Formats: sequence, C-alpha cells, structure tokens
Amino acid sequence: MAQPFRNVAIFGKPQAEGIREPLAAIAQIVRDKGMVPMFDAATRDHVGLKEYVGHTIDALGKEADVAVVLGGDGTLLGIARELSRHRIPLIGINHGRLGFMTDIALGQMPEVLSAMLDGRYETDRRSLLDAQILRAGNTIFQARAVNDVVVSRGTTGGMVAFTVRVDGITIYNQRADGLILATPTGSTAYALSANGPILHPSLAGLVLVPVAPQTLSNRPITLPDAVVVEIEITDDREAAAHFDMQSFSLLAPGDIVRSQRGADDVVLLHPVGYNYFETLRQKLHWNVMPSERHARG
Amino acid sequence: MAQPFRNVAIFGKPQAEGIREPLAAIAQIVRDKGMVPMFDAATRDHVGLKEYVGHTIDALGKEADVAVVLGGDGTLLGIARELSRHRIPLIGINHGRLGFMTDIALGQMPEVLSAMLDGRYETDRRSLLDAQILRAGNTIFQARAVNDVVVSRGTTGGMVAFTVRVDGITIYNQRADGLILATPTGSTAYALSANGPILHPSLAGLVLVPVAPQTLSNRPITLPDAVVVEIEITDDREAAAHFDMQSFSLLAPGDIVRSQRGADDVVLLHPVGYNYFETLRQKLHWNVMPSERHARG
Amino acid sequence: MAQPFRNVAIFGKPQAEGIREPLAAIAQIVRDKGMVPMFDAATRDHVGLKEYVGHTIDALGKEADVAVVLGGDGTLLGIARELSRHRIPLIGINHGRLGFMTDIALGQMPEVLSAMLDGRYETDRRSLLDAQILRAGNTIFQARAVNDVVVSRGTTGGMVAFTVRVDGITIYNQRADGLILATPTGSTAYALSANGPILHPSLAGLVLVPVAPQTLSNRPITLPDAVVVEIEITDDREAAAHFDMQSFSLLAPGDIVRSQRGADDVVLLHPVGYNYFETLRQKLHWNVMPSERHARG
Amino acid sequence: MAQPFRNVAIFGKPQAEGIREPLAAIAQIVRDKGMVPMFDAATRDHVGLKEYVGHTIDALGKEADVAVVLGGDGTLLGIARELSRHRIPLIGINHGRLGFMTDIALGQMPEVLSAMLDGRYETDRRSLLDAQILRAGNTIFQARAVNDVVVSRGTTGGMVAFTVRVDGITIYNQRADGLILATPTGSTAYALSANGPILHPSLAGLVLVPVAPQTLSNRPITLPDAVVVEIEITDDREAAAHFDMQSFSLLAPGDIVRSQRGADDVVLLHPVGYNYFETLRQKLHWNVMPSERHARG
Repeated sequence: MAQPFRNVAIFGKPQAEGIREPLAAIAQIVRDKGMVPMFDAATRDHVGLKEYVGHTIDALGKEADVAVVLGGDGTLLGIARELSRHRIPLIGINHGRLGFMTDIALGQMPEVLSAMLDGRYETDRRSLLDAQILRAGNTIFQARAVNDVVVSRGTTGGMVAFTVRVDGITIYNQRADGLILATPTGSTAYALSANGPILHPSLAGLVLVPVAPQTLSNRPITLPDAVVVEIEITDDREAAAHFDMQSFSLLAPGDIVRSQRGADDVVLLHPVGYNYFETLRQKLHWNVMPSERHARG
Repeated sequence: MAQPFRNVAIFGKPQAEGIREPLAAIAQIVRDKGMVPMFDAATRDHVGLKEYVGHTIDALGKEADVAVVLGGDGTLLGIARELSRHRIPLIGINHGRLGFMTDIALGQMPEVLSAMLDGRYETDRRSLLDAQILRAGNTIFQARAVNDVVVSRGTTGGMVAFTVRVDGITIYNQRADGLILATPTGSTAYALSANGPILHPSLAGLVLVPVAPQTLSNRPITLPDAVVVEIEITDDREAAAHFDMQSFSLLAPGDIVRSQRGADDVVLLHPVGYNYFETLRQKLHWNVMPSERHARG
Repeated sequence: MAQPFRNVAIFGKPQAEGIREPLAAIAQIVRDKGMVPMFDAATRDHVGLKEYVGHTIDALGKEADVAVVLGGDGTLLGIARELSRHRIPLIGINHGRLGFMTDIALGQMPEVLSAMLDGRYETDRRSLLDAQILRAGNTIFQARAVNDVVVSRGTTGGMVAFTVRVDGITIYNQRADGLILATPTGSTAYALSANGPILHPSLAGLVLVPVAPQTLSNRPITLPDAVVVEIEITDDREAAAHFDMQSFSLLAPGDIVRSQRGADDVVLLHPVGYNYFETLRQKLHWNVMPSERHARG
Repeated sequence: MAQPFRNVAIFGKPQAEGIREPLAAIAQIVRDKGMVPMFDAATRDHVGLKEYVGHTIDALGKEADVAVVLGGDGTLLGIARELSRHRIPLIGINHGRLGFMTDIALGQMPEVLSAMLDGRYETDRRSLLDAQILRAGNTIFQARAVNDVVVSRGTTGGMVAFTVRVDGITIYNQRADGLILATPTGSTAYALSANGPILHPSLAGLVLVPVAPQTLSNRPITLPDAVVVEIEITDDREAAAHFDMQSFSLLAPGDIVRSQRGADDVVLLHPVGYNYFETLRQKLHWNVMPSERHARG
C-alpha cells in the first residue's frame, strides 16, 4: 500500500483563526520526512507563514502528490472539487469537531500524519457529479459537485415544477421545494435532512431525494451511477440550481439541469483502521446507548 | 340551523377564464331567492357582468351576510383572509378539481347552493394565525394567515438558523430549510409535504413542522392553539417569512416572527352531509382500493 | 399551590436491585415531614423493609394522598394506570437515566422531594384511554392505557387489515404492520418511532399513527380527544391488540377495538421549574450543538 | 436478443379461480409455436386440464427453457425462488391488477406472449438473497429470498434488540419493531412501507430499513450487494425471521441471521418497450396529475 509522496500540498480553512501553528506543524512534519511542503498561496498569505512559498491551485494540482487539508468537511469538499481532475489524494485534519471526511483530530495529527506520509493509510474513492445547465440546447453553465446537484424553488412563489428523466426516460413530474441528486458522499449531507437514505461510499449509486414533494407517495430513488439524470424546469416560477457551493439562481422554464458521474473520483486517505460506520455512528449520534426512552407500556 | 341571508357577496377566481356563465348563474340563483347578489368589483370587471354593480372588499365585508366564491382553495383562502375580521361565512364552489375547502362541484351547484341559501348547511370553523415580524422590539410587518406562517431559507446560502420559543420558553435551536407553523387548515397544505401530521379542523391545535432539519431526531410538534410561537432568526444568512401568500423576504438576524391564533375564525359552510374524512381520502388518494402492491412474500 | 399530604404511597420498580436504600430514604423523608409512608406490599416484600407495613394497591388507592414511585417511566406508567381511578397524583424518581415522566434524579431526591411534599410542585395532567374489544356486540376485553392502544399484526402472515372509524364515520381502510392510537403521553413512546408527531401534554388531542402502512400517502392524523375511535379487523390474519403493557393476542375478523378518553386523568407532580421542552430535548438528543454535520457545499 | 425456447413451463396461482381458460389459452399458444407446454403438476391438477401432463417443480427446473406464470407478484415470487438455481427466465401474466413483475395483462396476453416466445423480449435480472440462521455456530435454517430478509418482534413483548454487522464490522445496535434487508426487487415491497428508498433493479445494492426504530436518527442504508449482512439477536424477547414467505418464528438470543447475495439471479422477461419507471408510477399512484392539492398560499 505504500506510495512515496514527494510534494505535499497544504491547505487551511479560508479565513479561519488559530490555524497558523497547526499549519506550521504540518509543514514541519512534511519536511522532517524529507518531503516538500507546498502551501496554497491563499492559506500562506492568510496565516503569514512567510518562510514558505505560496503556490496557485493550478501549480499545486500539477505538482503535488498529496494534499493535506486543515479545516472542516466544507473546506475539504471545496479543495477536493478543485483538485479532482488532477487526481491528487486528500488527507483531512479537523481543528474543530470531526467531520465525515476530515476524520483526523488535530491532537492526534503528528503521529497519524507521519504514519500516513510513510504510506500507512487506507484509500477511499468517492464519485462526483459533472453537471451542465442547458438552455435551448446550449450549455450555459457547468459545474462539478462532490455532494449534490440540487434544483430548488426561489425565495418566493411556492414550489418549483419539474420533470425528471433518467437516460432519457421520464420518471415523474413533480412539484416540490426542490430535488436533490446526491452522491454517496452527499447522501449524509443535505439529502439526509430531506429524509434520503444513506449510500455507502463504495456503492456505485446516486440518489434522487425530493424536498417537500407535493405527491405524498413520492419516495427517494437510488439509481446506478452510470445514468444521466435530467431535471427540466416546467413552469415559470423562480427556481435555482446548486452544485455543492455554487449556485445558479435564475433557471427559466425549459432549462435542463443534466448530471452524470464525473470521469474523475475524489480520493480520500484515512488512517489505517478507518471505519466508515464508526464515523456514521458518531456524526449521527447513533452511539447513544440503547436508551430506555419512553417505556412502551 | 337556518339563518336568513340577505346580501350575498360573489367572488370569482382572479383572471380565470370561463367563469362568466357560472358567476351569472350564481347571481341568478341568489336573486331567485329574493336575496341581493353583491359582486366583488374586480370579479365583475374581469368578467364584464355590467348588469351588476361591483363593490369594494370593504363594502362587501360590511354588508354581506355570506360570500360565494367560485375558484380553487387558493382563491377561497385569499378571500377568507380578507373577510375574516368581518366574520362572513364562505361557500366555495370549484370550477376545476374539488379542493379541501371548495367542495361543491360546479355541476351540482344549482341545487346545492339553493339548499344552502335556504339554510340547509353545515358550519365548519377554522382557526387562523395573526403574525408580526419584530425587529429590535418594533413591529415592522404584520399579516394574517389561514394556512401557515413559514420561515425559510433564501435562494442561496444554505440553511436558515433559528430559535423557536413557545410562550417564551425555548423549544429548540435548529438549522433547516425552513419551519412551518400550520393551522389545522394548513396541515393538509405545505406542512403535509414536509411530512407533518394532519390536524383535524376541530382540534384546538397548531403544528410546528421543520423542513429538511439538520437534526435528524427533530420531529413535528402539535401544540395547543392558545400559545404564542416565536421564531427568531439567529444567523445572517438570507431568510424570508411567508404568511399564506404574502412574503417578507429580508429577515435579519434577531428578527422575530411571532404568531398566535387570531381572534377571528374563518367560517366555511358546507352542504348537509359534508364529511371531512371523505375529502381527505379523495385529495390524498386514499380511495385507492387496498392494492395488492408488491407481494410481501 | 400548596396542598397538604398526609398519606404517601411508596412504590419501587418491581424486582429491581439496589433500591432498598433509596426507598428507605424516601420513607424517612416522609416521616420527617410528619406524614405517613405507606409502602406498596410487593415493593416492601421485595426489598425487605420489615419495619414498614405493606398495603394492597387497593388500600393505597383509597388512602394515599400522593404516590412516590422509584423507577423508570415504565414503572410509573403501570402504577399510574392502576391508581388512575383514585386520582392520586404521582411523583416519579428515577434511579437510572431520567425519563419523560420520572424526571427527578436520585441524587437530587432529598431536597426536591422534601420541597414537593411541602407543596412546592407543578401539576401536569395527562389524559388516558379507556378501551374495549367488542366481538359480535359484546365486550370481551377492556383495558386502560396511558400511552397507547395498538392494533398490530401477528408474528407471521403479513399485514393486518382494518377499518378505522371516528365517531362512527369511516376514515380509511388500511393494511399495515399496525396502527397506534396515542395520547400526548404516548406520542413520545412507540408512536414517535413510527414517525408520529409529538403532542404537547396540554393539547386536547389524540393521534393515529400507522406502522408501515401499505398506502404510501397515509399520514398520522391528530384528532380532538373527545372522539370515539374504532379499529375493526377486516381479514382473518393473525392480529393482536395492546393497551400499554397488556396484550390481547387473538383478534378475529369483525372484532372492534374501541377507544376513548378516560374519565380520569393521570396527575403527575414535577419540581417547580419543570420544563416539558427541556425533557424533550434531553430525551430526543436535541441538546446536541448545532453541528457542522456534513458541509452542504 | 432472440433465443429459441423449446420447453415452456406453465404455472397458475395456487387455488385461484377462473384461471382454467387462460391457462389453456397459454398452453395453446405454446403449442401453436411448435413448443412444448409443460404444466406444473399442482396447477394442472387444480384446474383439471387432463389433456396435459403435470410435472414436478424439479422436472420443470431441469427441462424447461422458460416459465410462464399466471398470477400476481406473490405467485411469481414463489416460483422464481424455487426455479432460481435452474436459471430459468420467467414471464408473468396478471389476471388481476398488474403487478411490479407480472406486467402483462391477460387481455393482451395472446399477442404479447406470442411475440415473446418468438424472442422479442427484454431481459431484467434481479438479485436475490441467500440467508442462514446460525445458532452457536451451526446453521439451523436456510432460505432464499427474492424480496427481503426480515427480523421482527414477536406478537407480544415489545421491540426486538439486535446488532447489525456488515462484513464483520458492527454498524449499530438497535431496538425496533424489525429490520428489513431488501433487494432492489424487495425495495418496492415491505421496505417501502417502512419508509425505505426505492432501489433501481439494475443497482448493485441492498438496503437496510429499520421498522419503527427506537433511535430517531436511524436511517435506511444502501449497501453494495457484495457484502455479508449479519443481524444478531441481543435480548431474549420473542423474535422471528422472515425470508419472503417463509418464517422462522423462534429466534433466540445470540442467533445470527446472515444474508448475502445469492449466486443465481432471477431473470424476468418483459415485452419490448418495458419501462420500469412506468410500472413504478402506476403502482405508486404517481400518475396522478400534478394536483392543485391544497393551495399553499
């Protein structure tokens, strides 16, 4: 499983406080291994580690062998998206509460990171979505999403109406607050709040989850991830599309949001012994003891 | 149960087509009873029934004894809200698919309306909500809602964060797409799509239903309708409040949306033999036969 | 609010270990107030407090002014049901994790109980259900339930089929694993697991919650608590009825489980400052901090 | 796509009435093609078609090239399970309401079946589950399931407690009415009533769906279908296991229900133009027009 890293990209959560010391410590560990720490320019400028050079994301994409991200899941997601076409694996270190993907606590970082840079890690591949907005046959917007592609109603004006097609075949017409197309990674994010199922990261699937659908018998559908999903706006109320963080706010009737699995995967590295279900239990508070709750009788 | 009506207000669905004849027929039935048809001015102008006088909603509120509304539930709701302080009972006639509240089909209108104007009807009282938006202690907006008061996220920027208080006591802090406070009437509208329970119209209750809440163990709560519910915005993301149709789009951190049962009720009149559960079954497609669905074994 | 108690019934959780000392401490506090501790005979015999006399539940019902129960919600529920017709208020002390109703921790018991016996408490009235099973017009079983009346399928043979009537009017026919009719107290027990709404204890309501219903658009319905609810078994598969703890296992086609609010209420006493919503937050793990969960973007 | 069939097994719904004529018509169509109709012995005896020979299921398994089943999904399921190790494709003809799998209406049977026997059909592979019950390390029961493996509570005694392991790793401990492990085929059966997601038949996945779980944040999990799922009973309340139709009623503490995808698939044949989503819409009543439902404002 060992794989020699040379250049190690280092990112910090944008504008976060209190991350200068930990970032310096990470860089030092990298150096001590005889590897090259390569700081993201924005991170380096923000925390003022002048003894290091800052690099553009593009340069990091081309030259780094692995990226270490200090922040929460949101930070990691954004960087994963940007680096995905370069296929650089990511290590997430959380300086707050542990995340689904940033699963290394800062306190354990020195040993854990050291071991991982030595090649002792587990690999976790995550699919992502490539999406386009088509208007009158032309692509007017495109984006990549690690979590989900969402079509949702505007602030006013009630539900959004849409038709959903899978590989060209209509599944249903629906009015709803929105519709979420989530990857396994995204299945524990917004989709979960909307009552969607959890998709194990190694499942080759995607899930369609309606938000507050008008048809009460509507249910989430898990699809194989080889499909093309199209969501077509069918009336003229305010509607928007969201691709992880990026929003396109002015969908018009007839616009089609087309999504499919991207050619690249996001590759996460975890410490040896990583357990997805353990993370799930902790994040979803399943680790509560079988409670007596309210006696059933 | 009989109650003599003299002045009968008549409303049509705004901008609807094909309602001139039915409206004229309604007016004629009223006249034939020796009662006075009083047309809503906007309705009369829209359909061009020049032989009748148009009246302002205010004049109708003061003089009418009953209002006949031709349209869907949305139309009825809007008029009910405007007439509520005048305590004028409403009769809903649907020229399309039957609604929850507009439960008289146009085809049966002549006999049914005639019988109802003669005093053969059933009375159905519906509570409504009076709401204010408070900013720094001042009321900056107020509105009345028959269905629901909703706080929801803006088009971009993720979930809205809020604190909910009942009679001054905090129930929970939450992040979500939104929060719905619904009357029994509203419990079969938006709240139902968000997985809320149905509240029987004669229940003295309100229900709080979160939309896509971050906390997975959050659940709808049914409260007695004597309470004051406050929803306070606790972060600076885009958020809006909706009171049935009316929206207030720019909630700021610290703004409080305060709701309580209004002093007035909406009074609906139904034909004798009206059955709420029958309406429910039809609207929610419960009248499907016990299906074989997919064999369980 | 003060109310002089003279005779104080004392109950412990049946067969529980480690409750002798706390029970003795409770009895001593009662004595120190100049009141009379009256032990439940089964409790006294189980823990061997021979210096006290044991009384039958019937004697306690007639003579006690208040009952102190050491145990969990299940213990309290059972005693509440048995004492309900005597209208004796209950104080619940939990020797394990706090419950919804047994909300006094053993560690705080001395001061809290002392204050409550002095008359410093808050009163919390809970409705209960009286139910009968009717076969061919005859009552073949009757029971009282504080939480819920449940009709459920047998171990084998698939779903149970039933018709639900409210005040003689059919609401729906359904096939399901079961149907729960819950009081506000029961709304946080089994009904909550089956996706029912929470009913505030002061709401004059009951809720019907289907368990795994075949019709996907079926939803929980909250009814005013003045109704009579009948659940009639409509096919010949194995079916059972449950009234809190008591089960009637052999329902036959045509059997009717009829429920209505009981004439008596259960009266719980809580320490001053009791907050229902606080209990809810703790029991349902809502007190988790607004988590970052999985970043939505 | 064409594939020459020689021997055509014919099955009817056990004990069903009015199926003699349709079965005779099916056999005649088979004969007219120059193929050999081979009747299931039980079917032949039940309807009394004495001009045909009856065969054991074993003989049919060995000699038939395709099986035509007249009945509902339940009938097809049972036969599919029995024939699965022989890898004989199935054609389902429904003499009542169309099913998910028995999607050919009797009225259209003559042309449709004729075309299919000529080789004009679409193939639909469905995974199934092989399961064992292990007690003290020994297999005490084994069964095959097309829809689902279910562990559920007994008639009395409250929830069943269990631990779930995937490939030897514990996911969670839970108390619930039950736990469903469903194939994509089973995802539209019992699991759907319990609020599980729909799994497209071509998804290589399984789904775990709890029924009325005590932990409110529990959610359905979709897993890749290469896993081994173990459900271990962890307390001594009544519990049962169900494998489609077959039940094992006396699970004991420590018993493990182990399931994994079977080596064989069920192969269904559909008429050309078959559309899974169309079936879904019809069976789940999604074909209802975008209703106005209750106006949202």
